[in-house]
Amino acid sequence: MRILGVDPGLRTTGYGVVETAGASFRLIEGGVLRPATTLTLERRLAQLHDAMLEVVRSTRPDCMVVEELWSAPKHPPTAVLMGHARGVIALAAGRCEVAFEELSHVTVKRALTGHGSARKLQVKAMVCTHLGLHVAPDPDDVTDALALALVFGLRARTPIAALGRT
Amino acid sequence: MRILGVDPGLRTTGYGVVETAGASFRLIEGGVLRPATTLTLERRLAQLHDAMLEVVRSTRPDCMVVEELWSAPKHPPTAVLMGHARGVIALAAGRCEVAFEELSHVTVKRALTGHGSARKLQVKAMVCTHLGLHVAPDPDDVTDALALALVFGLRARTPIAALGRT
Repeated sequence: MRILGVDPGLRTTGYGVVETAGASFRLIEGGVLRPATTLTLERRLAQLHDAMLEVVRSTRPDCMVVEELWSAPKHPPTAVLMGHARGVIALAAGRCEVAFEELSHVTVKRALTGHGSARKLQVKAMVCTHLGLHVAPDPDDVTDALALALVFGLRARTPIAALGRT
Repeated sequence: MRILGVDPGLRTTGYGVVETAGASFRLIEGGVLRPATTLTLERRLAQLHDAMLEVVRSTRPDCMVVEELWSAPKHPPTAVLMGHARGVIALAAGRCEVAFEELSHVTVKRALTGHGSARKLQVKAMVCTHLGLHVAPDPDDVTDALALALVFGLRARTPIAALGRT
């Protein structure tokens, strides 16, 4: 199974594609999408949407995974702006008939480290372990996206009970 | 000038197109877009985006006007969901090279009724007056969209100072 994790943002959207390879995972591609900040909102959204379409079409994932709504920023206008990015990214999944899935950040942390409130460094370390990387991808948005993809893959092949309460 | 006002929502998006006709306005079209609630999020967004593209292409507005970010719902997950709808609608404007504009609800109320905290009924009455309608469009989402379009039109032809502080 090939999974595309995405950490949506209007400034920086991180993404990472992993493939299950037997009992382990293989990194296919990771990166960031940064629509030009000089553009108007509607053109930035078009640029972000087109770039994500290109990622989906070139990497051909079985599903796209993002953080669930409850992880939304507390400041309503910021939440709406993030929603814009998340919306045009979900639209890219819809256009390509790729399932759009959601995981909470607690689920991601717990599945990777055993603790739902693990620190960012621990999560980074576990992403590196699973993918055989010596250095965590930079910026964090890519690591966050890869963490989502990895956990979706882990859950897809492990009975949920074995990962603890979700 | 032809203006498309939009009140974005994932369940119901209201829209209204008005055209300036000398000193007054003419209603071109109004309606609601309701993506099927049985669909997954990504497919609902695709349906909403496609329907809005169709409205923009068939009515050919000079600009699209929505409520500004500060009018966002207070509940962050709700704000993100509304942001999804607003995002794919803004994307439709971007695709068609139509300018995406924003107005606050206080500006809309003040410009139509003279008072920034006017009641909904007053706003409805003024929308009807400007467009020569005997009955306000139903549902309210359409009236709200038309109010945005009307006020953008009023401001485009009136020195801002004449409309009071904005």
